[in-house]
Amino acid sequence: MSSQSVVFIGAGNVATHLAKGFYQAGVDILQIINRHFDKAKNLADQVDAQPADDLNSLMKDADVYVVAVQDDAVQNIVKDLSLPRGTLVHTSGTVPLSQLSNAAPESGVFYPLQTFRADQELDLTQAPICLEASSSETYQQLKALASTISNQIHPVDSEQRKTIHIAAVFLNNFTNHMLACAEELLSKHNMDFDLLRPLLEETWQKVRHHKPSDVQTGPAMRNDRQVITEHLDRLKNEPELQAVYRVLTESIQRKYS
Amino acid sequence: MSSQSVVFIGAGNVATHLAKGFYQAGVDILQIINRHFDKAKNLADQVDAQPADDLNSLMKDADVYVVAVQDDAVQNIVKDLSLPRGTLVHTSGTVPLSQLSNAAPESGVFYPLQTFRADQELDLTQAPICLEASSSETYQQLKALASTISNQIHPVDSEQRKTIHIAAVFLNNFTNHMLACAEELLSKHNMDFDLLRPLLEETWQKVRHHKPSDVQTGPAMRNDRQVITEHLDRLKNEPELQAVYRVLTESIQRKYS
Repeated sequence: MSSQSVVFIGAGNVATHLAKGFYQAGVDILQIINRHFDKAKNLADQVDAQPADDLNSLMKDADVYVVAVQDDAVQNIVKDLSLPRGTLVHTSGTVPLSQLSNAAPESGVFYPLQTFRADQELDLTQAPICLEASSSETYQQLKALASTISNQIHPVDSEQRKTIHIAAVFLNNFTNHMLACAEELLSKHNMDFDLLRPLLEETWQKVRHHKPSDVQTGPAMRNDRQVITEHLDRLKNEPELQAVYRVLTESIQRKYS
Repeated sequence: MSSQSVVFIGAGNVATHLAKGFYQAGVDILQIINRHFDKAKNLADQVDAQPADDLNSLMKDADVYVVAVQDDAVQNIVKDLSLPRGTLVHTSGTVPLSQLSNAAPESGVFYPLQTFRADQELDLTQAPICLEASSSETYQQLKALASTISNQIHPVDSEQRKTIHIAAVFLNNFTNHMLACAEELLSKHNMDFDLLRPLLEETWQKVRHHKPSDVQTGPAMRNDRQVITEHLDRLKNEPELQAVYRVLTESIQRKYS
């Protein structure tokens, strides 16, 4: 497939990483649109594109339009769009494909299964791209585009994509919160989180090469009631941590009993 | 302080890693006692010690006796002990120091803040050792012993040790369970956990150099009610995962609101 031209609507973390990834791969980035012109210009300058702050100035001759904005902003942007040609995609884990269907001849989802930070380089080749498309031709078009930045391309339907998104919440947001709970507990007793960093390192090394369910340990897994009771008792002054401890202990016990 | 001699009661993961660490550091390991003689002998052979399977044959002239067994087995072992000399320590995060006080002239806790797997090498120099002792002389003795294997030695009292142990449950056991929940969810929808490994790698890189509370993200953190409601709805056929999702979302919202 010959090289494609792409317009980005949005200039946040996801747009930045994708636009730079495409640009480095030789894809032609035509335009970056963001309601804050400075932000559009900042990214546009990095990928030789035109900046704009108004959807009315949207170029109409791109092959692919990527709406890379917060989930709940997709609808607002799309309702005013009516593209004569091209494929309109969003990058969300949750927004249904059908939300795009009236705005362009073809539509799709280009969901990078990764956490993005604007301030940090990321090896996009290791980011799975989950693709969904309104037709098999469009799927092939998006696959060709995704292949320029990633080796891991997965066709997923809307149901699978939403399941993946929930799993990602457990894997990323909730694990981070467990660490934040440990940090909070130590902090309340005047100890520093760094004390736990060697354990964090080993914890990570263990799951890195195993299925998590194969390496579960701890009082809940062993059903060590004496330790569990003591822990819950010691958390009585931290009722919110206690609630989390209780529910997760019960969840582990049910899973492995 | 001149070199010390050590006896191990127990031959599991913790005993194995500590005994091998001491041995490599030139500490004299006199004896390994385990109720299964084969297990005692296996470890004893690796550290030039005598194996035994009976506490009645315990050598009485060691400087330090390390009881490295499951938390709830410490009491059973200690109740029959009456050592004429030396320091008796356990390696537990939860057992109070007082449980050892009648069994030997001096007592202490030698709690390595690390997760041990018998089948894998571990860099003990990066494992914090939390020490507690019945006297300042004994603290100095245990500190000298700990210094042979680790650069990170922390005096902690029994209260702090128990708090650390709970924090370690959050950091290690509960994070692992979050990953196992993600694995379970994908598995129920015929997808493989490996799909999430690149995200796991980035998640880890993010917390590796930050305080977890500084890098929390996700629908709960953003208070994105639409996504949260949809996620909970989609988990209605997985009520146990739904319960975990709900409690953790509420916990994150309370923490950052």
